[in-house]
Amino acid sequence: MAKHAGSVFSVDVTGLDRDAGQPAYARISERIRTAILSGALVPNARLPSGRTLARDLGVSRNTVDWALDQLVADGYIVRRRGAGSFVAAQLPERDSAPLRPERSLIIVADTAPRRISRRAEALRAYPGHYEPASSVPFTPSLPPMGLFPRDVWNRLLQREAAKPGDDYWHYGASNGLPALRRAIAAHASAMRAVRCSPEQVIVVTSTQQAVELAAKSLADSGDRAWCELPGYPPVRHGLRNAGLEVVDVPVDDDGLDVAAGLAAAPDARLAYVTPAHQYPLGVELSLARRHALLDWAHERDAYVLEDDYDGDYRYEGRPIASLQGMDERGRVIYIGSFNKILFPSLRIAYAIVPEPLVDAIVGAKHIADGHTALLMQGVLAAFIDEGHLGHHLRKTRSIYDQRRQAFLEEAKMLEHWLNFRRAISGMHITARFNEAAIRVEDRIVAEICFDEGLIVHPLSRYGEASNPGGLVFGFAGSDREQIHDKLKIVKAALSKLDKRPRGR
Amino acid sequence: MAKHAGSVFSVDVTGLDRDAGQPAYARISERIRTAILSGALVPNARLPSGRTLARDLGVSRNTVDWALDQLVADGYIVRRRGAGSFVAAQLPERDSAPLRPERSLIIVADTAPRRISRRAEALRAYPGHYEPASSVPFTPSLPPMGLFPRDVWNRLLQREAAKPGDDYWHYGASNGLPALRRAIAAHASAMRAVRCSPEQVIVVTSTQQAVELAAKSLADSGDRAWCELPGYPPVRHGLRNAGLEVVDVPVDDDGLDVAAGLAAAPDARLAYVTPAHQYPLGVELSLARRHALLDWAHERDAYVLEDDYDGDYRYEGRPIASLQGMDERGRVIYIGSFNKILFPSLRIAYAIVPEPLVDAIVGAKHIADGHTALLMQGVLAAFIDEGHLGHHLRKTRSIYDQRRQAFLEEAKMLEHWLNFRRAISGMHITARFNEAAIRVEDRIVAEICFDEGLIVHPLSRYGEASNPGGLVFGFAGSDREQIHDKLKIVKAALSKLDKRPRGR
Repeated sequence: MAKHAGSVFSVDVTGLDRDAGQPAYARISERIRTAILSGALVPNARLPSGRTLARDLGVSRNTVDWALDQLVADGYIVRRRGAGSFVAAQLPERDSAPLRPERSLIIVADTAPRRISRRAEALRAYPGHYEPASSVPFTPSLPPMGLFPRDVWNRLLQREAAKPGDDYWHYGASNGLPALRRAIAAHASAMRAVRCSPEQVIVVTSTQQAVELAAKSLADSGDRAWCELPGYPPVRHGLRNAGLEVVDVPVDDDGLDVAAGLAAAPDARLAYVTPAHQYPLGVELSLARRHALLDWAHERDAYVLEDDYDGDYRYEGRPIASLQGMDERGRVIYIGSFNKILFPSLRIAYAIVPEPLVDAIVGAKHIADGHTALLMQGVLAAFIDEGHLGHHLRKTRSIYDQRRQAFLEEAKMLEHWLNFRRAISGMHITARFNEAAIRVEDRIVAEICFDEGLIVHPLSRYGEASNPGGLVFGFAGSDREQIHDKLKIVKAALSKLDKRPRGR
Repeated sequence: MAKHAGSVFSVDVTGLDRDAGQPAYARISERIRTAILSGALVPNARLPSGRTLARDLGVSRNTVDWALDQLVADGYIVRRRGAGSFVAAQLPERDSAPLRPERSLIIVADTAPRRISRRAEALRAYPGHYEPASSVPFTPSLPPMGLFPRDVWNRLLQREAAKPGDDYWHYGASNGLPALRRAIAAHASAMRAVRCSPEQVIVVTSTQQAVELAAKSLADSGDRAWCELPGYPPVRHGLRNAGLEVVDVPVDDDGLDVAAGLAAAPDARLAYVTPAHQYPLGVELSLARRHALLDWAHERDAYVLEDDYDGDYRYEGRPIASLQGMDERGRVIYIGSFNKILFPSLRIAYAIVPEPLVDAIVGAKHIADGHTALLMQGVLAAFIDEGHLGHHLRKTRSIYDQRRQAFLEEAKMLEHWLNFRRAISGMHITARFNEAAIRVEDRIVAEICFDEGLIVHPLSRYGEASNPGGLVFGFAGSDREQIHDKLKIVKAALSKLDKRPRGR
């Protein structure tokens, strides 16, 4: 934290009176403004990160973000992407009107704690509700924005928006725009050996939504669902929020341990899996396990939710077909997303469901939010039909592959501390600590990296409490030079921690 | 149904073999194609409505739509908005390749009925999952597309999409784009006397989503919620789907009968109300009831979900402030939507929540679908900030008012059968049957109107079983001439039913 103005800053804003008549964010922004105007914070000084401020001030990340937003709007600070917030070089006139007078100053007195539901309490444990991701090196699951053909997309957007008729403006069908469902069915059939008709495709906003709709349609409150452990936390929370009991099923080198699931909860109604590339460990569900999983589902009248989040990226070896394509008994709900392969704010994903379940899951979509916004569905359908998706996948597959190879080579500098698995697919690589070399919580390493401007996820974030921990690196967003430079930062962090005893 | 080719048609497609190797929609489209090619259906013949076909063939509306989509794609039929589907005047070459070869012919053998969850079974009762609405006269809750300034919107869309930087492309904050939250807070404060800071605004996709997120955050499975009866069915289903037990609370001329709610379920955790303009009855929640409702919520640690779906449209009398604006104890979640005042496929709505509940509800949004798509949030923020929303509301308020007055005048032709309430706000008018003049289920009247190209909702659709029934007319989408012509169709239907005995 040596680079920012932390010490000066903390003098000015700690000890804020929480009971003053203003909302917390307004008080914080006022203190920072005063510090800037008084000269305590000099032009171009770097502010502590939002996360650090939130921790130091004992307020939510959201509150800090609002305080900073206001200062940006008023011209007192500037944000530089990936670098942080800085005091503006040129301060605004002290007497000039604020850019957004009044609006931000409406006061609400009620800030006492309130009772919320038990399921909402359970969500409090989940980290990072509010943080919009940006292009920070090694952030997993984030496609690099620079590779996306924004000009092509915007041209299609303009063309589709200008189309006469009301198709993109009225209410739409809850299952999605017909043109997009056809395009998705063709894409998933060709690329992932999914077997389906366009009637089976349901357009949703996100993998999360697909999981929740399937859970509501296929299971009732109190029913059980298998989840991979370690696994993707939002899905676990989503299933719980839909009233299901999550049963942890361990993952080994062959993927989900189906026998363990059978032993723990043979009567589960659902199993959530990432068979092509387990998240976060990166293993592949073996053929024997696939058959065992499908047999269980068939025999027990259960369903498998197949999250194929990065199945389009495979760099070595034979292609792995989807689990859905192996299934002859209608037991798999296949879930794909464009948010991770095109751009995250698109909010278009899809479920491909067995025909007898279509009505129920579309009904759940209708009740959840009516339908997914239409114009972007039309743009995406055109993007696919006119070959741009195929082109983008070929291009990014080649670039990600180069980055993967560069990462694996450069990561040798960390092999004293970390055991890297040879990744052959996807956009991230997971490494476990070498227990002989380092005994430290993985969260500590991740926090040090964060303060240095890297986002590396600790393996413990994915629900695995057992040691050794590990780190999850997204490699798709950085070229070789960046990878080299940033891994040196990780190396420095690990070197410092090398001889520490376990724990803090 | 005299105008379409129903009789010829039914000879050709009834008795379809449900076990043939093709999906149902492919079999249906093949039969229709054969009927067209054989000359049994002549060029320009009108096909039966999708709804009629679905009923006659015993398949879902979805299946019929797919069959028709394929025939449209292949050039055998054409759709005319609001009029129906017709055999094309010029048929495609018989030997030419279909426009979308292969894709639609992928076959899935599995069509046996399946067990779905009890909550999904409960949803089956809800009508009309799949029907995209179009500009059919009298459809309630549908803004007329012709009045929306599409050119302005598309210009902002193009401008925002072309902005450099990644703000519209990356993951966004779960509570919404800051610029939009500021714009919404300012709009709701100015127009609806809502008291809030932008921190309290949470951007969602729809009223439905706002209700579900609040329900999950504030109540657990098995908790109870008051709902207006008659009331808006998707909200009732949404609350049930979130695990809550819906307690019906009757509505009279003063709105929700709070005393009845207190008697039935004093321990409910939530109450869903439409205080400005009850849906569908159109009454206003009285001041005494408002105080009683807020007192109950305060005393019982419960919350009120205020759905202000058409609060921007009031044509006579004093303006009615929001319930949220009266609430000094942080008990109201205010819900507004742009889908009904701009255009339905936008999918942007918002909740304004007491500060202590912000974190919990934003957490639920994060788990539900991450965040709402960003680019359209930016376009909407610009649309509001640059004065276009205000202009659009002033313009439509004036036009809807003219249409409301025209409707009330023209509707005198129906006063023998229907008692119209003098509507002073909103976009719909509800009338109850005059029991002395007509004894028939309101659904029958609605079905006859539907077959004549009108969408009039029967009051029984909103959950009220008791007689007399009634009809809900959306007046915002039709000018005086259309209103006159279409009400004559309703009059003809009512005249025919005049002397029938009760029931079918």
